[in-house]
Amino acid sequence: MGFNLAPLQNLIDQFERMQGIGHKTAQRMAFYVLGLSDAEANEFAKAITDAHTKIRQCQICCDLADDELCPICKSGNRDKSVICVVEDPRDVAAIERTHEYKGTYHVLHGAISPMDNIGPDQIRIKELVARLSDDTVEEVIMATNPTVEGEATAMYISRLLKPMGITVSRLAYGVPVGADLEYADEVTLSRALEGRSLI
Amino acid sequence: MGFNLAPLQNLIDQFERMQGIGHKTAQRMAFYVLGLSDAEANEFAKAITDAHTKIRQCQICCDLADDELCPICKSGNRDKSVICVVEDPRDVAAIERTHEYKGTYHVLHGAISPMDNIGPDQIRIKELVARLSDDTVEEVIMATNPTVEGEATAMYISRLLKPMGITVSRLAYGVPVGADLEYADEVTLSRALEGRSLI
Repeated sequence: MGFNLAPLQNLIDQFERMQGIGHKTAQRMAFYVLGLSDAEANEFAKAITDAHTKIRQCQICCDLADDELCPICKSGNRDKSVICVVEDPRDVAAIERTHEYKGTYHVLHGAISPMDNIGPDQIRIKELVARLSDDTVEEVIMATNPTVEGEATAMYISRLLKPMGITVSRLAYGVPVGADLEYADEVTLSRALEGRSLI
Repeated sequence: MGFNLAPLQNLIDQFERMQGIGHKTAQRMAFYVLGLSDAEANEFAKAITDAHTKIRQCQICCDLADDELCPICKSGNRDKSVICVVEDPRDVAAIERTHEYKGTYHVLHGAISPMDNIGPDQIRIKELVARLSDDTVEEVIMATNPTVEGEATAMYISRLLKPMGITVSRLAYGVPVGADLEYADEVTLSRALEGRSLI
């Protein structure tokens, strides 16, 4: 690019390694860093190492935590008899934003995907099964993504848990609220018809 | 966003402060950092502090440098009698990519813009004038941006330098190579007509 300065080029390369960040953006970000004060730059660098060293996985639900347990597993106000199973910590945040769900979560950190060499042992399924041994859990809600991998994972887990006498449910499929029926794909629309309810 | 984890939220905030980075992108970038190994995260943090402490301004041309002088001012192969004046270090990189220019540069770090309270004293004009005192410089090429601010800066500097007996020139205006005439704006097109040359 014409910057013959190793420290600058190194920083640009670091930013460029991130998914979705192209060369021009990485360059703009590096120049942003150069424009910071010394204290700000140190704070930025510290935020990176801090997040990396302080954030770990909750010992119960495998969600991100800054302690042994995540804030949700620590809380006394959550219904421990219901577990909502998601693929990613960001899905927990998405469901929390609804303010509707009062149970606990289990984060799989992925979905079964034979194409990517991810089998049941590569995601946190045995940690989920371990949580079910003490009989307090009554229902497991599968909230994996509505994709082929997410479906396969939901099916796999439901077959594993049903013999244990646990209710396994799945998020409803249907047309998204606020969307236009005209643009809904056939599969979504036929699922919405199947799942219709009386009004 | 539902992440009740201070180190994670802090990192997201740090990324979000950058221009052009929205909340979702900042979040994705923070998760990228969480996915790094310890060594990689430390390297990333170090790249930030390194770039910040090691990069400074060249004592001659005010371009970015990792030493007293930038690689161009240090080089013995550049024509010291021509100075190309640009607004930003990225403009130096852009001109260097042409491999056509063999003179030196001067980086103003901005352009005169009364609207943003940037006057001639806020940009590196006096450093440019200081370079002209020893009579080796014969021509100054104004390569500020073709914007109102860039034009004003070019005019200001040319009026300042002409009485010193220095040739001051300006980059040519015209239609960009490879573009479609149909989409050229009127001002660009009339400048291209004015500046037409014999073939």
